[in-house]
Amino acid sequence: VNAEIIAIGSELLTPFRSDTNSLYLTDRLNTLGIEVEFKTVVGDVREHLVNAARIAFGRADVILFMGGLGPTEDDLTRECVAEALGIALRRDSGLVGELYKWFAARRYKMPESNLKQADVLIGAVPLPNANGTAPGQWLETEWAGRKLVIMLLPGPPREVKPIFDEQCMPRLKALGAGEQIATRVLKVAMMGESACDEIASKVYKKYRDIQTTILAGAGEIQLHLRGRGKTLEAAKAKVDKLADELEDALEPHLFSTAGESLEQIVGYYLDMRGQTIATAESCTGGLVAERLTSVAGSSRYFLGGAIVYSNELKSQFADVPESLVKTHGAVSSEVAKAMAEGIRKRCGAQLGVGVTGIAGPGGGTDEKPVGLVFHALADGKRTEVVQRNFPGDRERVRWYASQQALDMVRRKLSS
Amino acid sequence: VNAEIIAIGSELLTPFRSDTNSLYLTDRLNTLGIEVEFKTVVGDVREHLVNAARIAFGRADVILFMGGLGPTEDDLTRECVAEALGIALRRDSGLVGELYKWFAARRYKMPESNLKQADVLIGAVPLPNANGTAPGQWLETEWAGRKLVIMLLPGPPREVKPIFDEQCMPRLKALGAGEQIATRVLKVAMMGESACDEIASKVYKKYRDIQTTILAGAGEIQLHLRGRGKTLEAAKAKVDKLADELEDALEPHLFSTAGESLEQIVGYYLDMRGQTIATAESCTGGLVAERLTSVAGSSRYFLGGAIVYSNELKSQFADVPESLVKTHGAVSSEVAKAMAEGIRKRCGAQLGVGVTGIAGPGGGTDEKPVGLVFHALADGKRTEVVQRNFPGDRERVRWYASQQALDMVRRKLSS
Repeated sequence: VNAEIIAIGSELLTPFRSDTNSLYLTDRLNTLGIEVEFKTVVGDVREHLVNAARIAFGRADVILFMGGLGPTEDDLTRECVAEALGIALRRDSGLVGELYKWFAARRYKMPESNLKQADVLIGAVPLPNANGTAPGQWLETEWAGRKLVIMLLPGPPREVKPIFDEQCMPRLKALGAGEQIATRVLKVAMMGESACDEIASKVYKKYRDIQTTILAGAGEIQLHLRGRGKTLEAAKAKVDKLADELEDALEPHLFSTAGESLEQIVGYYLDMRGQTIATAESCTGGLVAERLTSVAGSSRYFLGGAIVYSNELKSQFADVPESLVKTHGAVSSEVAKAMAEGIRKRCGAQLGVGVTGIAGPGGGTDEKPVGLVFHALADGKRTEVVQRNFPGDRERVRWYASQQALDMVRRKLSS
Repeated sequence: VNAEIIAIGSELLTPFRSDTNSLYLTDRLNTLGIEVEFKTVVGDVREHLVNAARIAFGRADVILFMGGLGPTEDDLTRECVAEALGIALRRDSGLVGELYKWFAARRYKMPESNLKQADVLIGAVPLPNANGTAPGQWLETEWAGRKLVIMLLPGPPREVKPIFDEQCMPRLKALGAGEQIATRVLKVAMMGESACDEIASKVYKKYRDIQTTILAGAGEIQLHLRGRGKTLEAAKAKVDKLADELEDALEPHLFSTAGESLEQIVGYYLDMRGQTIATAESCTGGLVAERLTSVAGSSRYFLGGAIVYSNELKSQFADVPESLVKTHGAVSSEVAKAMAEGIRKRCGAQLGVGVTGIAGPGGGTDEKPVGLVFHALADGKRTEVVQRNFPGDRERVRWYASQQALDMVRRKLSS
């Protein structure tokens, strides 16, 4: 069974907006064994939309139209799909009543034009929309001798997601004698893509019926696993077996087996071990603290930190001896170590993190080039320091450095 | 003149990846008066790709194929476009030589399969690729009595952008007797969408031939202006006139008239006025400092800051009197004020910023609900405090609060 997703709206053909709903819908469809084989974006133009619909009816089994269900003249999806199918629309009196109720509850007068939102393709089931005035529609029909499933869905993410999950997924499940698909996401920190693939491929190549996709970002690699089975349990069992083997093979780089972010994992470990943490940052400018505190409940383990751009503040907030900066320079292993140890004591935390480096684009020298960063982690007994030379621009160097610092905390707490 | 962009690659039909190149290409095409009217995503499947190409030839004048130019079996764009057009491919001996050179320079042996990257549509001009082995192609041809411009472009952003800018744009310009399009982006901070539109619409409605698009985000609204003219200068003059009027009307909320970010603008002002700044953050957890320091050269004006989650650290790093926290609570106007004043003095900066609030999801009470944030800005003479109740989740509240804090700095420095 294959699907086509058609996103409708002239704003999706500008340089400013792109369709993102389709990623979510693809994920949900895949769990039912339905593959998305085409995606189309078309503007609010009657002729274009009718033709795009006809093309989709000719090449896909399940067609999802998204957007163009509003009350304005530009909202053409209902009438264009009807025209493409060669069927009529009927005005649904139940939906008309719902529309009046929706406006009455908000003490607005309903504009006449909104009535077209009650128009339904003959044979279609309306899909109530709890978050807006545009109901969706579900139609099972035949076209040129083939069975089609057609869905009309609203465009805004907060409207389309609940309608699809609560009303379309159960109907698709009921239809489908198809296979079930299970997925898992594993994440690996601070490892090169080829080094990761060299280890991982030895494992996943043995599992020919599971699709493994590797996505590499700055300091993080994601492995997406997808397997099919007659039941969801059977599919899950296969995927979980591969995930377990990959987890063993990719230790200690692997940090997440269920899609969590690195800062979430660090938070779990800090909570679990009842430990607290503090940060002193130079080149990352607060990014390490910002990531740690982006996790709900982080006030349980994150006490505070300092951003110490100037050398004076390195002493004032993290007790870095001035002589150390003079002797070794602000970007040095010694200063990173002193920052981690100083902020740890100052904040009364069990762990202290220090990061100093050159994020660029300026400030680099032959000896200390842009991308050079020192990361330190102090626990009161010993202080570990890691030196790295990161590639890329300012944003990328800062991200890499925050990733390295968080990964050092994770490794310490997980061992 | 209308265009269709076809992104090719099965990975673009997964839940993990979406085509982003097309936004860039759309922006460039629009400057030449070429509108993108269709976008299609299709996998590495011969039949699908040939059909998608034929559909595009039937409905668009300019067709951009992106991706599928590599050396593997999955890379089918060259042969499928040839098949759809009913023309042949020729192996270009110049390109074969380039491929051998590319591999020799890297001391690799060239795999036989790479030779197919030297295959060119009969009549097409190869477009050298400085950043990869896959050259692009430019073809002007006739199809069903209509003139078509067809481009084959590589998929990776760092390959497609320079090829398109340096080799396709001049060719499109030379072809086009079309109108020119000028664009401008204005940005407004901490204003509601309807309040902004109420003011802006009075202005832009007078300019019927300029398209104004309003995009609202958390604490920031963007106004995108697009106008046409016979020359780029004529188009620019029209758009600039509207931009100037909008700038006057939207003062003092408007902060950028050329697309700069709020932290960039704050940086410009600090640099220009020769002022320095320091930050003390609670609920934003370092986000204000992180945004300030994301700008290259920020070490000239950003001295440092503290993240003071615990009450103890509020005293230790920002000299907030303990009694103040006891009397008014950590989330209060008084504590925000003391944080701004304390960090200013501690860091020896001209300006001090203090932010304290409840980001959620936990920690809210009836009296002090999630979303309540106090923002303070101290200059040594007086300290301004702004209280806000932001909607949304933890991430959104933190973003709003950082936006509010930065906007207070901007307003102070611009007045």
